[in-house]
Amino acid sequence: MDKKALYNLSYGVFMLSTKAGEIANGCITNTCMQVANSPTRVAISVINANYTCELIKQSGVFALSMLDQTCTFETIKHFGFQSGRDVNKFADMNLPKDGNGVPYMGWQTCAVLNCKVVSSQDLGSHTLFIAEVEDAKVLSDQAPLTYADYQSKVKPKPEKKAEDKKIVGWRCKICKYVYEGSELPAEFTCPLCGHGADDFEPIYED
Amino acid sequence: MDKKALYNLSYGVFMLSTKAGEIANGCITNTCMQVANSPTRVAISVINANYTCELIKQSGVFALSMLDQTCTFETIKHFGFQSGRDVNKFADMNLPKDGNGVPYMGWQTCAVLNCKVVSSQDLGSHTLFIAEVEDAKVLSDQAPLTYADYQSKVKPKPEKKAEDKKIVGWRCKICKYVYEGSELPAEFTCPLCGHGADDFEPIYED
Repeated sequence: MDKKALYNLSYGVFMLSTKAGEIANGCITNTCMQVANSPTRVAISVINANYTCELIKQSGVFALSMLDQTCTFETIKHFGFQSGRDVNKFADMNLPKDGNGVPYMGWQTCAVLNCKVVSSQDLGSHTLFIAEVEDAKVLSDQAPLTYADYQSKVKPKPEKKAEDKKIVGWRCKICKYVYEGSELPAEFTCPLCGHGADDFEPIYED
Repeated sequence: MDKKALYNLSYGVFMLSTKAGEIANGCITNTCMQVANSPTRVAISVINANYTCELIKQSGVFALSMLDQTCTFETIKHFGFQSGRDVNKFADMNLPKDGNGVPYMGWQTCAVLNCKVVSSQDLGSHTLFIAEVEDAKVLSDQAPLTYADYQSKVKPKPEKKAEDKKIVGWRCKICKYVYEGSELPAEFTCPLCGHGADDFEPIYED
């Protein structure tokens, strides 16, 4: 099986948020699709290790903010590269809230869906939620950011490696997991957070 | 709820095929995403009225051919605008077959996934299948065709309406359902096949 074939699936890029009791949190995902139209339902898949996944299981509601072409890497970093277990990502952000009290993106976002979970299925690494769309709004006339756009335009290019130093390992930029060895296999996925080889950075010898 | 918000979800375009007993069939879909990575699983959503949906329920296997930038409107028409209940879409096509005997696209396609259904859920208009990826191949180095590309580049622009004739109804190009009335609401979806207002053509008075 050539796992690179799966890289040809097309996705958007989303800020997925929820609020369980007093705790609001959000993360960056790329997996949402409409799965039915009467009633209107979407499916999202969320990494089980993510705090947002745990909170959606508690609250049964989420907002899906569809990031658009004006989205910056700072936004991706803010919601995608740190955990809500360590940081309150919504502190000092004056974001609008949907009917369930869930904060959603008020900028860099072309549309938002407000959703109520109707079923969920644990798939090992991820949980698949099927949800009814309770409300939907268009927020800008910008084109949606695709995952391919994110990879080619938004994500900074990796720094050139220090040519005189040997690579001794690879660190996951998302969860800091360390892979020991000089060559990271291209199809490697992080055993902790499920991100792929693209999200690892080299660790050089001292 | 503004259903146009849902148009901002990003998708690819796929030829979804299966073989149940001696009957092979395929259709065009835009809904597939990877939902887990250990083991590798994808989810697809298929309109219940589609013959391919009925056959996947029988066979429990499918191939997902990811159409690429070289895909022509003829291919979309061949697999998407006629039903396998009326026509054998694979007759006279010399297509490769996967390990389950399912024919898949040998051209205009950047990758193919060969999948085995592990669970399914009826969502009213559609069935959601979760499937294990048994094999995956890269077939070309072309970029995948996105649904937005299909709408802007592949699909022919609608003909200008005959200015001296009145529109008396709208016909679904997919299943031929007729909507009676001069104005088709933009958010209308076909009650038979689930396709949207974009897939309807005007019927003029005699």
